[in-house]
Amino acid sequence: MKKQTDAALSLSALGRRTAAPAISWLMATALGRPKLISLAAGFTDNATLPVALTRELINEVLSDPQAGPPALQYGITAGENNLRQFTAEHVQKLDGVRTPAHAWERVIVTGGSQQLLYMTLEALCDEGDIILVEDPTYFVFLGILQSQGIQARGVRLERDGLDLAHLKTVLDGLKKTGQLRRVKALYLITYFQNPTGASTTLAKKRAALALLKQYETAAGHPLYLLEDAAYRELRFAGPDTPSALTLRGAASRVIYTGTYSKPYAPGVRAGFGFLPEPLLTAVQRIKGNHDFGTANLLQQVLALALTSGRYDRHVAGIEQRYGEKARVMKQALAEYFPPAVEIWESGGGLYFWARLPVGVVTGVKSKVFQAALKNDVLYVPGGLCYAEDPARPIPDHEMRLSFGSASPENIREGVRRLGAVVKKFV
Amino acid sequence: MKKQTDAALSLSALGRRTAAPAISWLMATALGRPKLISLAAGFTDNATLPVALTRELINEVLSDPQAGPPALQYGITAGENNLRQFTAEHVQKLDGVRTPAHAWERVIVTGGSQQLLYMTLEALCDEGDIILVEDPTYFVFLGILQSQGIQARGVRLERDGLDLAHLKTVLDGLKKTGQLRRVKALYLITYFQNPTGASTTLAKKRAALALLKQYETAAGHPLYLLEDAAYRELRFAGPDTPSALTLRGAASRVIYTGTYSKPYAPGVRAGFGFLPEPLLTAVQRIKGNHDFGTANLLQQVLALALTSGRYDRHVAGIEQRYGEKARVMKQALAEYFPPAVEIWESGGGLYFWARLPVGVVTGVKSKVFQAALKNDVLYVPGGLCYAEDPARPIPDHEMRLSFGSASPENIREGVRRLGAVVKKFV
Repeated sequence: MKKQTDAALSLSALGRRTAAPAISWLMATALGRPKLISLAAGFTDNATLPVALTRELINEVLSDPQAGPPALQYGITAGENNLRQFTAEHVQKLDGVRTPAHAWERVIVTGGSQQLLYMTLEALCDEGDIILVEDPTYFVFLGILQSQGIQARGVRLERDGLDLAHLKTVLDGLKKTGQLRRVKALYLITYFQNPTGASTTLAKKRAALALLKQYETAAGHPLYLLEDAAYRELRFAGPDTPSALTLRGAASRVIYTGTYSKPYAPGVRAGFGFLPEPLLTAVQRIKGNHDFGTANLLQQVLALALTSGRYDRHVAGIEQRYGEKARVMKQALAEYFPPAVEIWESGGGLYFWARLPVGVVTGVKSKVFQAALKNDVLYVPGGLCYAEDPARPIPDHEMRLSFGSASPENIREGVRRLGAVVKKFV
Repeated sequence: MKKQTDAALSLSALGRRTAAPAISWLMATALGRPKLISLAAGFTDNATLPVALTRELINEVLSDPQAGPPALQYGITAGENNLRQFTAEHVQKLDGVRTPAHAWERVIVTGGSQQLLYMTLEALCDEGDIILVEDPTYFVFLGILQSQGIQARGVRLERDGLDLAHLKTVLDGLKKTGQLRRVKALYLITYFQNPTGASTTLAKKRAALALLKQYETAAGHPLYLLEDAAYRELRFAGPDTPSALTLRGAASRVIYTGTYSKPYAPGVRAGFGFLPEPLLTAVQRIKGNHDFGTANLLQQVLALALTSGRYDRHVAGIEQRYGEKARVMKQALAEYFPPAVEIWESGGGLYFWARLPVGVVTGVKSKVFQAALKNDVLYVPGGLCYAEDPARPIPDHEMRLSFGSASPENIREGVRRLGAVVKKFV
């Protein structure tokens, strides 16, 4: 016992407090249950992974005497210039406009957008600082906050994005209690949000940025809009929405993070961001300490995919598969879930959001969860996606349902099993 | 002006204090000078990069219907189990013995060993804590310490490793001033050290670990030996030395970090470490927040290289090239440098260490450095490799000379140019 205590004492405050990932228990649960259908995993669809394309691209890169050796060598901490340029052009094309905020020199390439979120929080926040988050939000982002000792304040989420009136209420409350100086940013997952599937309209992005601006004097520093666009290109219905980079003043206030992991392949892990100064410099320096640059081979695969048009063709091709699986989930939910459950369907991403009547608890210790498990179907309890926030108890009656990795047949069967469970408790 | 101040205020203490990398100025200097010969860069040799082998391996992985899709999917935060197992076997083979410290479950795979050093310091150190380092040491490690607000104390380095008497003096001094509680680890680059090329004998590793143990009661927690073996497999002369993992008690006190980036390819960036509990759990959780796992494609390339024997054949093949370049540098130094310069040659790695007479300053603003630059040759000033340490001024009369990326012809010509400069000032 004594030895254990001693060893724990050697850890830093961060080392001691960093909690196990919220979903590690869920993932462990899935192992060793061959019949289990997981509607929990946020994995992309194996059937959409560009196996042949990646082979083709790597063969081209490595058979080019000019490109081969550099692809296996060290590179530039901020990312290779060609990938930074193609990334800037790519996002400009998505946004349909080129603004100063889209300049390629503002791009940093990272080992997935997760790494960029981590480094951005390192650069922005001291222990005790506050990040405003959507209520609910991405649970690994909450994990970073917890680990770094950063506070979260939830802002209600509506089906078209943030509840702006509530954002104002939260900001006013923080101003009143003198905590506005601790607020550093508002974190929004603006496309097919994890976990709800909701997307934020451009009008709401604009209004949120304007509202933040009004509180800057009281805060004493910029209040950034951190736009996480991880799911933007997993879109199968409806038009794309311009990002916050298109807004006036974005170059100094919007942090935009995107990824190639989800639309291309998580195994070719690369993300990127557009950052305003002085954050850009700070994050580049931090990246120099983390790993001085993401693996060049991955960067060159993506650069070639982008510049040759094969990236765009691949993304257009996966649309159909995800669209089909989302339709299967939608139909199954209509068929098997009781009408008292409110379903948020999505035009992209990997998730639907199911809101059971208040009082029907969905957490891992709940009867619903245990019965689901007994019937070999797994979901993410909604409660895992809410920040600890003194302003409200954590809602415990929701479910995140993923159509990402399960087959259409398993989506249908999983929803059928889950619907039978839910009907018993609703 | 006001706006600039405001923006800086939004940064965290870490974000504000993280300095530009020590060598960014050097790297910027090298750009736009086509005739410059860089003996500064720590890059590996382009001629040794396994371009054809990597193509072959990736084609095999991606043409296997079982292995292809998982290589492009998400994986396990700690690393894929096959690579963790092959890594454990690989280090066991290098060490010639299997101890409990070599268990594969203790392995974590990271985006280069740099990332593991970063996360280990996050898990171990609060601001103000102390890490003992070799004097001189790896400057990017000093960059992490600076960024995270960790103090360094230098321990003199001899040609066969740490000066143990000085280690005792430093520990006694810290004990006397009540600072031993802030000490968390001793960081040693035990194979062909960056920057000196010195290697640490097993006897010295054993003695250092035993000495740390004696101070643990006063410290109130474990004092870890952090062994960085990044250059271990870039060996071209002499036998390998067992790592500190082979020592009694290693499983609870030795942190071993290694890398595939240098012996295989920096562009296929992957490193690894063996960690004792509770650090292992803490670092795995932290990795979950950084990126929840290094790119699977890179991991599967390395796993196949290791298990098929092609990794070992590749490493055996690069020996000759580095050995030849080291011989060229040695001969050129003998021919062109004045005898008053003490040269530490190495049996591996990428570096020789040149110690000019005290008083002949080599820093970036020195006459020597400026004259070298004028003559189109670049080196790393030794002073960049020393920690800020209240116990001594930073030595300023040394040079790190790399034979890593320059061709044999350029090594010879670079040393000739540099020797002519040095002769003028010695």
